[in-house]
Amino acid sequence: MYPDSFDSLIECFRFFPGIGEKTAERLAFSILDMPEERAEYFIESIKRAKENIHACPVCNSLTDQKECNICSSDQRDSSLLCVVEDTKSVFLFEKLGLYKGKYHVIHGLISPKDGVNPEDIGLGKLIDRIKNSQFKEIILAFKPSIEGETTSLYIKRILGDMDIKISKIASGIPIGADMEYIDAMTLERALMDRKNIE
Amino acid sequence: MYPDSFDSLIECFRFFPGIGEKTAERLAFSILDMPEERAEYFIESIKRAKENIHACPVCNSLTDQKECNICSSDQRDSSLLCVVEDTKSVFLFEKLGLYKGKYHVIHGLISPKDGVNPEDIGLGKLIDRIKNSQFKEIILAFKPSIEGETTSLYIKRILGDMDIKISKIASGIPIGADMEYIDAMTLERALMDRKNIE
Repeated sequence: MYPDSFDSLIECFRFFPGIGEKTAERLAFSILDMPEERAEYFIESIKRAKENIHACPVCNSLTDQKECNICSSDQRDSSLLCVVEDTKSVFLFEKLGLYKGKYHVIHGLISPKDGVNPEDIGLGKLIDRIKNSQFKEIILAFKPSIEGETTSLYIKRILGDMDIKISKIASGIPIGADMEYIDAMTLERALMDRKNIE
Repeated sequence: MYPDSFDSLIECFRFFPGIGEKTAERLAFSILDMPEERAEYFIESIKRAKENIHACPVCNSLTDQKECNICSSDQRDSSLLCVVEDTKSVFLFEKLGLYKGKYHVIHGLISPKDGVNPEDIGLGKLIDRIKNSQFKEIILAFKPSIEGETTSLYIKRILGDMDIKISKIASGIPIGADMEYIDAMTLERALMDRKNIE
């Protein structure tokens, strides 16, 4: 129906996660409507991102430098390490602007049912880093799930004999949520982790 | 916060209509996650689309040939011409698969309040084409709006002295819609254009 070269462009957009047929068509039409220079800038940006951006050798987050801004900064609290399950999480916390420590990105979470074992998600590198640094607290910031829980327990067990505080971010009812829409597991967790009002 | 070359990529995605900050970030992350060959294929597809796709000289629709498939086809009814306000509409009708005539794409609709006059949307080319062809019916398929109405009336007036049927697609309550959510203008139109039950 469409000209061939337009069909391949639509197909390319379909490969992006969360992009359905209609949106892919709309994005492909936008490429046609784009001024020539904007399309060239877009192509250049894709090339530059693919060429320059790589994992920071220390924390695995994204960088186009030798080490990422956070690892190389002396403004960050190097007694605090926040462990996250993907690079996106680093930027979620950075947008908040509250956390001033360092990060470490692991590659997903342990999931025996999907065949994902501790060695698959780079836990060795994390443990080595912690053993060779002076962190006072490790904050585990995984999504609340069986996989998040398993990964947290595994890390806790390995680091158990070190003199280091290990914490995890709180889970419970999200602020502003309507109680009747909260799932049973979240409600159970909120009840179990109840806090004294002081 | 992000590496520079990642920021420019996000910025590029922000320029697509309907893409907000979060989606732009998500799309930019997908570029990073993409295998090298897929990213190259994407870049090639953008280049090819920009280089090869142009307006069909007859009907203004998209093509990567000399003339578009529909204009060059002898399987289409050349007594019927459907006039649409953009190339997207051609493909909407083609997906339906019901219409077997020819098309003509004009560049938007007349809108005096936005300073869009008949000469700005290529009506001269449309009128010339109709005068030099043997169409028996011209179907105006614009969105129901003041601009659509103005454009239809203008075309009707210019072609008024030709022996040619001029129709426009029906507007009214969409199939399956809930009556209480229909706006007043649509309801008024549905009432005025009521049809005898036979």
